[in-house]
Amino acid sequence: MVVCYQGEPGSFSEEAARHCFGRSAKLVPCENFRAVFRTVSRRQATAGIVPIENTVLGSIHQTYDLLLEHHLAIIGETQLRIRLNLLALPGTRPRDIRKIYSQPQALGQCEDFLRSLGDVEVHAFHDTAAAARMIREERMHDAAAIASARAGRRHRLAVLRADVESHRQNYTRFIVIGRRAVRAVRNPRTSVVFAARDLPGALFKALAVFSLRDINLRKIESRPLIGRPWQYLFYLDVDGSPDEARVTQALEHLRELSIFVRVLGTYERALTPTDRMARGRR
Amino acid sequence: MVVCYQGEPGSFSEEAARHCFGRSAKLVPCENFRAVFRTVSRRQATAGIVPIENTVLGSIHQTYDLLLEHHLAIIGETQLRIRLNLLALPGTRPRDIRKIYSQPQALGQCEDFLRSLGDVEVHAFHDTAAAARMIREERMHDAAAIASARAGRRHRLAVLRADVESHRQNYTRFIVIGRRAVRAVRNPRTSVVFAARDLPGALFKALAVFSLRDINLRKIESRPLIGRPWQYLFYLDVDGSPDEARVTQALEHLRELSIFVRVLGTYERALTPTDRMARGRR
Repeated sequence: MVVCYQGEPGSFSEEAARHCFGRSAKLVPCENFRAVFRTVSRRQATAGIVPIENTVLGSIHQTYDLLLEHHLAIIGETQLRIRLNLLALPGTRPRDIRKIYSQPQALGQCEDFLRSLGDVEVHAFHDTAAAARMIREERMHDAAAIASARAGRRHRLAVLRADVESHRQNYTRFIVIGRRAVRAVRNPRTSVVFAARDLPGALFKALAVFSLRDINLRKIESRPLIGRPWQYLFYLDVDGSPDEARVTQALEHLRELSIFVRVLGTYERALTPTDRMARGRR
Repeated sequence: MVVCYQGEPGSFSEEAARHCFGRSAKLVPCENFRAVFRTVSRRQATAGIVPIENTVLGSIHQTYDLLLEHHLAIIGETQLRIRLNLLALPGTRPRDIRKIYSQPQALGQCEDFLRSLGDVEVHAFHDTAAAARMIREERMHDAAAIASARAGRRHRLAVLRADVESHRQNYTRFIVIGRRAVRAVRNPRTSVVFAARDLPGALFKALAVFSLRDINLRKIESRPLIGRPWQYLFYLDVDGSPDEARVTQALEHLRELSIFVRVLGTYERALTPTDRMARGRR
């Protein structure tokens, strides 16, 4: 099985892919999110994995937009606790560091730490693991990367400071995309995107479709409807699967109220930390 | 009157500030969004102006987060049609261009144009007008900026190509922030942020508070509730003002369902292009 992900070995997306697909899958790095969608569309990979949301920085708009642009299905999800480290060549002292490189999302997640530093230039880089690799390959003794401990081990960098993220409750949710929708038996979740008709109370009525059938709404995200200023597309994640009559009926009802509805996929939802704690208690 | 904005002279935020406050206001540029909020909080400006949403790229998360972090009020809004131009030193030919500089949002708005170019490096810069200034000051004959025609005139650059934005319906909505809430008489709009109690159907119930009172919901934006993974803050824009009983009652009702509610402000809503067309027809 070939699975593609954004970033390079040592990145969080690679870790998420490994977590979903185990040791046997062949993992293929991609330059950016768009390339992941393209690689799966062109049948160069069975599945792809991309981040969609982080508990500190919020939704990743580009992933939502790419879901709409490509006709792929969400077939799974997973989440990772994001622990970030300040990595440098062994022997580099904290006071030697003049430049810090990392991916913009990772930099955003350590804003407090970065603001606490004095005169250090912060540079956005396309990938956390790639930043670590650059420090090693270009032997940068005045620079550090912010990346995972795995990326540090991979590129033989020392951890100058661990856990530099601003919030401990820092998780990223990743989705798995494939060409064919799957069925989920355990804990199914369904993702849908729609554009409501331009009527008063349209969004309220669209949510009523689910709430009146006791279907839990887990997430709502709005994105602009291109070409119609101040109108929106809504992405919803709801509990349940179209195998249940009430979910199918809710989706039919949603179509009555919308100019466009697309089911993005049904998949087994990832265990959240709270779920795991609840399991532990049992 | 002193009004601060993000960017520098020639930027779209400056144009929005001029549009709201006229020729007499003294406009003060700020390095970033956070500095705008800080400058107003510290009484170094009467008001500040920041973009909050674009019809192509969607909401600007940082502005939402800064609204929560600071105790300022939204006191106005305006919108601008964003027209982007490829600007270069006079004499530069299109085939000479090796590098393009602009602000990330502006780059995102001309994605189609940038993808149509061959071997050109695209560099993110902190401000559109600052990119234009750099081309002039550093006499870069192999580079271009993407910015407004105003920025081009200001820095004596030639328009190599006009309207490079991917979509004509490209508008940015800006909000005006101040220390004291205002009252709006004509076309009032109210912005509110809340965190619903963690109950089934919580968001649906929160929207019902408005819909059941025939209060139009114009915009919903969700942001993560920091420290509580997969729970959200919701920002709503609704028509009406707390001067109307039904709005006050709806807000009281919302408090019953929420762990936290804050009214961000009431202000006169900006005319949309559709409003203007409707006016023209009258």
